[in-house]
Amino acid sequence: MRMMTKMMTTSNFIDLKEYLRERAALVDAALDRWLPGETVLPPRLHEAMRYSVFAGGKRLRPILVIAACEAVGGTPERALHAACAMEMIHTYSLIHDDLPAMDDDDFRRGRPTNHKVFGEANAILAGDALLTEAFRLLADADATRGLDPAVSLRVIANIARCAGSQGMVGGQVVDMEAEGQSLDFATLQYIHTRKTGALFLAAIQTGAWLGGGDDDQLAALTRYGEAAGLAFQIADDILDIVGNQDELGKDVGSDQARGKATYPALLGLSEARRRAEGQRDLAVASLEPLGANAEPLRAIARYIVDRTS
Amino acid sequence: MRMMTKMMTTSNFIDLKEYLRERAALVDAALDRWLPGETVLPPRLHEAMRYSVFAGGKRLRPILVIAACEAVGGTPERALHAACAMEMIHTYSLIHDDLPAMDDDDFRRGRPTNHKVFGEANAILAGDALLTEAFRLLADADATRGLDPAVSLRVIANIARCAGSQGMVGGQVVDMEAEGQSLDFATLQYIHTRKTGALFLAAIQTGAWLGGGDDDQLAALTRYGEAAGLAFQIADDILDIVGNQDELGKDVGSDQARGKATYPALLGLSEARRRAEGQRDLAVASLEPLGANAEPLRAIARYIVDRTS
Repeated sequence: MRMMTKMMTTSNFIDLKEYLRERAALVDAALDRWLPGETVLPPRLHEAMRYSVFAGGKRLRPILVIAACEAVGGTPERALHAACAMEMIHTYSLIHDDLPAMDDDDFRRGRPTNHKVFGEANAILAGDALLTEAFRLLADADATRGLDPAVSLRVIANIARCAGSQGMVGGQVVDMEAEGQSLDFATLQYIHTRKTGALFLAAIQTGAWLGGGDDDQLAALTRYGEAAGLAFQIADDILDIVGNQDELGKDVGSDQARGKATYPALLGLSEARRRAEGQRDLAVASLEPLGANAEPLRAIARYIVDRTS
Repeated sequence: MRMMTKMMTTSNFIDLKEYLRERAALVDAALDRWLPGETVLPPRLHEAMRYSVFAGGKRLRPILVIAACEAVGGTPERALHAACAMEMIHTYSLIHDDLPAMDDDDFRRGRPTNHKVFGEANAILAGDALLTEAFRLLADADATRGLDPAVSLRVIANIARCAGSQGMVGGQVVDMEAEGQSLDFATLQYIHTRKTGALFLAAIQTGAWLGGGDDDQLAALTRYGEAAGLAFQIADDILDIVGNQDELGKDVGSDQARGKATYPALLGLSEARRRAEGQRDLAVASLEPLGANAEPLRAIARYIVDRTS
């Protein structure tokens, strides 16, 4: 029994690399197909949008959409448009977060940030356009063909709720307000569950709905999404302290330099690690009712905490 | 017959004021109901969103949604959520256009612009949140109850297309690139049909779909939307030259000061006026198949060209 677990773990580890690579390739190809080309008017805007979308992101959120869809028995193709929409929303949030008026970052994933290349005005507008394009794609007649329109509407409402003023954007506002302040744990949790957690959860729920999951499966995946999202953010906080700058593609220690509240700052490094692992285990345990189809999601939960970049 | 026309015109004039007032009141009440309150977390963000939404706008785009819905026999309530969504999108575009990196305006409708009151970061995020909230509302389960979900999806896809990189945002990019350049007429038209025209058209088509209009009615209203949108923009250009600063709530002559291409700059004032009136007449004539239900839209087309603010 012990040996079998070990074998499964080993084989999952190998499968996960392959799984992530294949699904990321699907997402990349679809993003290239669905985003207007760099020659479409106005070219500079579409160039700016594509610059950040194809900047070497891990495609974690779109892969979560696809993996959740597969976990309830759906095909990757069924969730592909929504997966791409999630990546567009994630990318818009990064472009706007990097702006001088916000985090004022010059580099992201080892490349100059959008506004450094295209100027502030174009960066703001490229973000606006990516957010808008995401919703266009979620409602697109071709992309949603064969889906129940009521399900597509539910997906749109949920993604918008998670990305909006009481979700991701709200988290960013509180995060900015909190810079340099001494934070209590409740506020840190508010920021984390919204700034990162909300899109994570939306990705998982989107996949569950598009894959035709039932209420029990949705409930299990919702628990997974909440725990995995929190594990991801704690791991991110830890990597900002102990990570390798080259692998991360951004400055290490930048949270601390900005006086940002993080799990390690509030709880210490070892307690933060313990919590990340606890959330990872909770995420994996949540998938118990889903069987073998959910194996990629289990492997992703482990990867989220064990990754080095 | 001539007298009757005159009587109708007179009565329409009185009706329009009443009509605009009543529909704007409906929109204001619905916006207040659907936007998160100023005490909802994070309060500063919701305060910033509401500051610009309730800044004394004419509610022209939402009223066009409602008027188009009524023109095909629908009730105002049936299109009210989409009307509010259009106003949120319009408001987000104004907040972002006013930013220092864009038009750098300190005043809008006689009040300090969003970023002057709440800071640049909050203004960017308030715009982002309003755009996101618009799509949440367009897909909201309560707001869309009783509507065919396929129609709601079509509305969302169309609004996103008109607001996105090949619509409103694209128009803003080209407008910025063109500042201080000598423009040809084709580029001016590109900017106008997208920066203002696209949302105008989306408003009209949204109302037509939500009101249950047939293909012929949609075609007539599309022609109306294109012509009325262009008439509105030319009239706006003219008002920037000859308007009354107090009534407009913004500086007169600001287009000229910025070296912006406008209809009067390219064609002269009297030719610009002639074109605005031509588009107004085309808009009114387009509504011929729609009968008495379209009377408010006819009056709005006239108002667009004859207004002084």
